[in-house]
Amino acid sequence: MSAFYLEDLHVGDRFESDTLLVTEDDIIAFARAFDPQPFHLDVEAAEQSVFRGLVASGWHTAAMSMRLFVTGGLQLAGGSVGLGVDELRWPRPVRPGDTLRLQTEIMEIRPSRSKADRGIIRIRNITTNQNGQVVQTFFASVLVRRRPGDV
Amino acid sequence: MSAFYLEDLHVGDRFESDTLLVTEDDIIAFARAFDPQPFHLDVEAAEQSVFRGLVASGWHTAAMSMRLFVTGGLQLAGGSVGLGVDELRWPRPVRPGDTLRLQTEIMEIRPSRSKADRGIIRIRNITTNQNGQVVQTFFASVLVRRRPGDV
Repeated sequence: MSAFYLEDLHVGDRFESDTLLVTEDDIIAFARAFDPQPFHLDVEAAEQSVFRGLVASGWHTAAMSMRLFVTGGLQLAGGSVGLGVDELRWPRPVRPGDTLRLQTEIMEIRPSRSKADRGIIRIRNITTNQNGQVVQTFFASVLVRRRPGDV
Repeated sequence: MSAFYLEDLHVGDRFESDTLLVTEDDIIAFARAFDPQPFHLDVEAAEQSVFRGLVASGWHTAAMSMRLFVTGGLQLAGGSVGLGVDELRWPRPVRPGDTLRLQTEIMEIRPSRSKADRGIIRIRNITTNQNGQVVQTFFASVLVRRRPGDV
């Protein structure tokens, strides 16, 4: 798969990712490292929590979604460098056995005002589970190179 | 340390975290799992990138900041359940050998309209490195329980 430059992209373009299975071990390992709270660490304690069962840290869901983005359809020349994220939401938790998938849509494209060799795209990323339920949404601004020679 | 209920918190309250040392191995391990791009994975390839050296994935910085939050001064009764994050920015990358610290400030407090036993606080989280330089900022909305008996 060849990587995209700014000129190759259009508002409304959509990209799909592969899928990623989330295991109980994955959820607990991430939580031990980064979000050590009972509802992410321990099945029995999680049953007593507001979640009524073990759930992934929202930051784990974000990290898994990044994996799906980097390995998905929107391969950017020079890599994916995020400038910022807005309206990050987790409308529903991720649970052991869920299979995640990411959909990306290009919302806006603009050349850089100060640097002729690049631009910025604004994308919407939606992560869904195996039932098509939305588990995470956000908007991101991402740096994209212009094709060399077009500058 | 006892955990805070909604009644214990005030707009303007500030909390500090412990510190967290970021190693090259940490950066590469996170990147292998979640953000496999050359500037997060490989020191030599990273030298040729826009970052001029190995840098942590922004999502790794976010995850480490969550660790600092969960283990820091603002311990919430029932745990920290994030409802959403806004304006997540990485003004400067995290590099191997950096030591991170998190500062949290309460920006807004409001009781839930629909549920008498809880409220929502809006916080600003700022992650800095050992030189006091800001590496990450965001606002988050977090669920907080009201003290039982006050309802």
